[in-house]
Amino acid sequence: MQKKNTLVEKERNRQDLGFGTKMTDRRTRLITKNGQFNVKRVGQSFDAWLNTYNRLITISWIKFFFLVLFVYLLLNLSFAYLYYLIGVEHLAGVDMTNTHSQFWDAFFFSAQSLTTVGYGRIAPIGFAASFVAGLESLAGLMMFAIITGLLYGRFSRPNPRILFSKNALIAPYLDTNALMFRMVNEKSNQIINMEVSLVFSKVEEKNGVRNRQYYGLTLERSKVNFFPTNWTIVHAITEDSPFYGETPETLAAADAEFMIATQGIDDTFADAVHKRHSYFHDELVWGGKFKPMLENDGEESYILDLRKIHDYDLVALN
Amino acid sequence: MQKKNTLVEKERNRQDLGFGTKMTDRRTRLITKNGQFNVKRVGQSFDAWLNTYNRLITISWIKFFFLVLFVYLLLNLSFAYLYYLIGVEHLAGVDMTNTHSQFWDAFFFSAQSLTTVGYGRIAPIGFAASFVAGLESLAGLMMFAIITGLLYGRFSRPNPRILFSKNALIAPYLDTNALMFRMVNEKSNQIINMEVSLVFSKVEEKNGVRNRQYYGLTLERSKVNFFPTNWTIVHAITEDSPFYGETPETLAAADAEFMIATQGIDDTFADAVHKRHSYFHDELVWGGKFKPMLENDGEESYILDLRKIHDYDLVALN
Amino acid sequence: MQKKNTLVEKERNRQDLGFGTKMTDRRTRLITKNGQFNVKRVGQSFDAWLNTYNRLITISWIKFFFLVLFVYLLLNLSFAYLYYLIGVEHLAGVDMTNTHSQFWDAFFFSAQSLTTVGYGRIAPIGFAASFVAGLESLAGLMMFAIITGLLYGRFSRPNPRILFSKNALIAPYLDTNALMFRMVNEKSNQIINMEVSLVFSKVEEKNGVRNRQYYGLTLERSKVNFFPTNWTIVHAITEDSPFYGETPETLAAADAEFMIATQGIDDTFADAVHKRHSYFHDELVWGGKFKPMLENDGEESYILDLRKIHDYDLVALN
Amino acid sequence: MQKKNTLVEKERNRQDLGFGTKMTDRRTRLITKNGQFNVKRVGQSFDAWLNTYNRLITISWIKFFFLVLFVYLLLNLSFAYLYYLIGVEHLAGVDMTNTHSQFWDAFFFSAQSLTTVGYGRIAPIGFAASFVAGLESLAGLMMFAIITGLLYGRFSRPNPRILFSKNALIAPYLDTNALMFRMVNEKSNQIINMEVSLVFSKVEEKNGVRNRQYYGLTLERSKVNFFPTNWTIVHAITEDSPFYGETPETLAAADAEFMIATQGIDDTFADAVHKRHSYFHDELVWGGKFKPMLENDGEESYILDLRKIHDYDLVALN
Repeated sequence: MQKKNTLVEKERNRQDLGFGTKMTDRRTRLITKNGQFNVKRVGQSFDAWLNTYNRLITISWIKFFFLVLFVYLLLNLSFAYLYYLIGVEHLAGVDMTNTHSQFWDAFFFSAQSLTTVGYGRIAPIGFAASFVAGLESLAGLMMFAIITGLLYGRFSRPNPRILFSKNALIAPYLDTNALMFRMVNEKSNQIINMEVSLVFSKVEEKNGVRNRQYYGLTLERSKVNFFPTNWTIVHAITEDSPFYGETPETLAAADAEFMIATQGIDDTFADAVHKRHSYFHDELVWGGKFKPMLENDGEESYILDLRKIHDYDLVALN
Repeated sequence: MQKKNTLVEKERNRQDLGFGTKMTDRRTRLITKNGQFNVKRVGQSFDAWLNTYNRLITISWIKFFFLVLFVYLLLNLSFAYLYYLIGVEHLAGVDMTNTHSQFWDAFFFSAQSLTTVGYGRIAPIGFAASFVAGLESLAGLMMFAIITGLLYGRFSRPNPRILFSKNALIAPYLDTNALMFRMVNEKSNQIINMEVSLVFSKVEEKNGVRNRQYYGLTLERSKVNFFPTNWTIVHAITEDSPFYGETPETLAAADAEFMIATQGIDDTFADAVHKRHSYFHDELVWGGKFKPMLENDGEESYILDLRKIHDYDLVALN
Repeated sequence: MQKKNTLVEKERNRQDLGFGTKMTDRRTRLITKNGQFNVKRVGQSFDAWLNTYNRLITISWIKFFFLVLFVYLLLNLSFAYLYYLIGVEHLAGVDMTNTHSQFWDAFFFSAQSLTTVGYGRIAPIGFAASFVAGLESLAGLMMFAIITGLLYGRFSRPNPRILFSKNALIAPYLDTNALMFRMVNEKSNQIINMEVSLVFSKVEEKNGVRNRQYYGLTLERSKVNFFPTNWTIVHAITEDSPFYGETPETLAAADAEFMIATQGIDDTFADAVHKRHSYFHDELVWGGKFKPMLENDGEESYILDLRKIHDYDLVALN
Repeated sequence: MQKKNTLVEKERNRQDLGFGTKMTDRRTRLITKNGQFNVKRVGQSFDAWLNTYNRLITISWIKFFFLVLFVYLLLNLSFAYLYYLIGVEHLAGVDMTNTHSQFWDAFFFSAQSLTTVGYGRIAPIGFAASFVAGLESLAGLMMFAIITGLLYGRFSRPNPRILFSKNALIAPYLDTNALMFRMVNEKSNQIINMEVSLVFSKVEEKNGVRNRQYYGLTLERSKVNFFPTNWTIVHAITEDSPFYGETPETLAAADAEFMIATQGIDDTFADAVHKRHSYFHDELVWGGKFKPMLENDGEESYILDLRKIHDYDLVALN
């Protein structure tokens, strides 16, 4: 009985970020350079795959505007075709000289209905054309209501710009060494109550089975009230650290990856912001020290030079 | 005196999910298959029953668009009737040939005013018609402002697609057995800080009174930082588990239900997501083990096959 | 030194809801019947007094629509006056028969510009009229953008309908008595993670000075995961309760008030909901027991009858 | 080994708000009078510097409306120029008398297309003009969709108006003295669950190196459930306070600053509100006591006079 609880208890205490122990492939990072998880889904339902709203919110602005333009043209063409089917003679003012001019006048009447600009030079006469035009105006308003919502969704989405130093450094720290990286808020927004957690992940082999294990690393400071300048995150490599005794070679052999999760509150909207980052073992510098980024210009305020975020000097370790 | 405190203290420590002890009906689940509570309200005030905004946000897209169309037609008919009462001779450009054409021109003028397309082929003349047209344009703009708000509300509503395995399994686990089920985020959104709690509910009879009791089940892991792949939730059936010693028969006799509440944060909007699920006692498989869902394609990323979420093999228990 | 710390420590442990000790007036409730604080501000800055957005969000729908109508008419009149000043001869299509018809045509042209319906029967000619019309259309679009925002703000505002029993009861409970009240979610929305806190406030006289004191009352259950049915909140009046030994007379003499703060999460939008309530000492019933509200109809789901929320039977106390 | 842990542990326990120890300039406040951090960024990417959405949300209303007007005119001029290039003879109804009248009619046609008012007195004929007009209407709708989103963003942004007393006072308190300041919600909104933290920051010189240190000050009460009236925040200067023994002179020599971070929940929208404030050492009054702000008018509610927020009497210290 006691034994049972021991095993269960031990399993309970094992750390796991939600990746599981099976992710042991050599060439594959768990978190990509842009903070995404390196997992692809197959077999999703169409709805879940489409994930319309999320997709329309996260595509680039260029793609978004071209999509709007495309839908606009497609709707105009479709309705123009409908008016053409009904007969352009039911659109007063259409230039009847030839098929070409007829179609384009139907097309532009369609555009004028969809956007509700309705100049009236061309206007519907009779039930069929008027009815379709009434539906088109409604469709146009619905479309622009949807676009308004999407635009606000795109705007108001929390979009923190947190820069991480390109490398994590093993640096001398007090009378031992420490693993350090630094980050800074690139925007002038104020981020408050910023928290960070750092997990050391490596593949361990036991009885010929490779399992990925996860170890939380204690930080000098894991939360700051304010985040106005750069913040250097420090894990002191004391003897009780899971990192103690590692070398570049052991890290490479174990496909080590350092995973960082940060969260804070953007003060403008009191929005939660979340950001992930990871350092792969080959992004560690053994013996480096970050150069200062903050200066005082002798004037009214402090100056933070973001271009220096990656800069470090080579130094000897303790 | 001591006794008093004992009883009060005991009551205080009894678990209760908010369902109370009176829900002891044999045929009735507490949480339905789609995660709703199985309770109907009567005697609500009209306002609370209508619950307009909530209803308009949660009805299906099909119903929503038909409702918009219906309101659009209804408003057009009402205003058309008003113009008809005023006299269509106050609408310049109306086809006066017969009553039929007059009414439809009033109707389409109404549509052109409501959508603010205003071609002008038909236009109001005189105070009454102009005044009503002015009100109709305002009404149209209000209506589309409302629709814009509703569309954004529908879009931005947290809408997680978390799949649960069809069955919960009693599976061998370490040197004992465990109750297991698994879940996966069907969408490609990133969900973080995912938490889950599992409650075992059963009806107990004491002195001839049937009361429903609730017992929290300790989990191997009740929170993960990231939720990129599938997550198997495990309750080890050790001797101190409230589930210890149960059999399919005792569970059936006690109308047992396993209730699951999950919460996490959708990373796109930093929105909280909440999801409930339950397994009724007849959805337990005694002696099963989930098949793996995650594969490595030998390429750049891991592959998660969602179609395998329900798959398990039959195995012997410890 | 020790003494200093004692006094400071004692003060630190004193409970205070943020009302302070000076609120000792006899006739005045701290929390009004509708959950507002009974405090008026004077000397606010104009901006803070106006509090535009908040006011436009919280006024009734009737007032809101009349305000929109009023602003619409006011803007139309102002612009009509501008066109009149410029000269209605610069509006093509105006009925020039008399001043009256000229003004109203300017007015309706204004309405057609503001709503961007722009029939064109009346249209601006020349720089001045066209320029003002261009500004008016812009003003109209801004106005409707603002209204769209306000409508969404009004819709999306968390608006819980939590009913509280009219009376709080002193009821027999286990082998002692308890202070009880109950609440229910009137809407069919699901509220989860519902928490409640109960504070007993009374005026105490010491050395001739009346000070209001606040005592938290321990609850049988202060949080439920789900809130699908009614919830009876119970404070057991054991000997260590600050309420122990009180009578209707002592409560009246001390202007006692029971203040309730609740919070939960509305599942539809994952919105936090907050609600306050209070029972004045004359709303306590000494010796009552709530009647059940939940029934099983022998069918698929449980029935919750909201009309019974206030109902209780008179009973003898322990 | 023990020594290592000691140093690391000591560093871990040092308080730091996220400002770091290097901010030791004499003339520079860390938090400005309006609650911003006194740090300027250089070397931002263009995007991060622009920070479009945030900037458009936080600029003043005057600037915002002038920006809208400016963009409106700019777009109109640009499209007018396009129509002019295409040839105004493709706009039916344009006054062709001279170049001047032609340009302005193109300009106003542009305005009528952009706002979708489309009177139709001027209307496009032929492909080129119709095509540009179709694009312009789309651009107009997009622009107003964007403005709608921005307006809602500006409205719905949490905008608490929390007033702080101009001075922090050193006041007699129980049998010792205390550092006190007070704050009040200027608006009538209800703020709940209000929390405050106070940090005492000063520059300390060790071995000729000036480092800024941060000390949290224990408060009499650091959280109130409700915030209906004024709240006086009190730090008792007992012997274990980091402030104990300081004088106006020692504070000035150490560039002392008292930094305040508050957070609460605005009840109207259940929005989190955050506010920072700081008192520089020269804003302390040694020997003062705040005058009461709350009165009872002998009527139904209490009266809070916001004009008295800064008022204090001079008193002797303990």
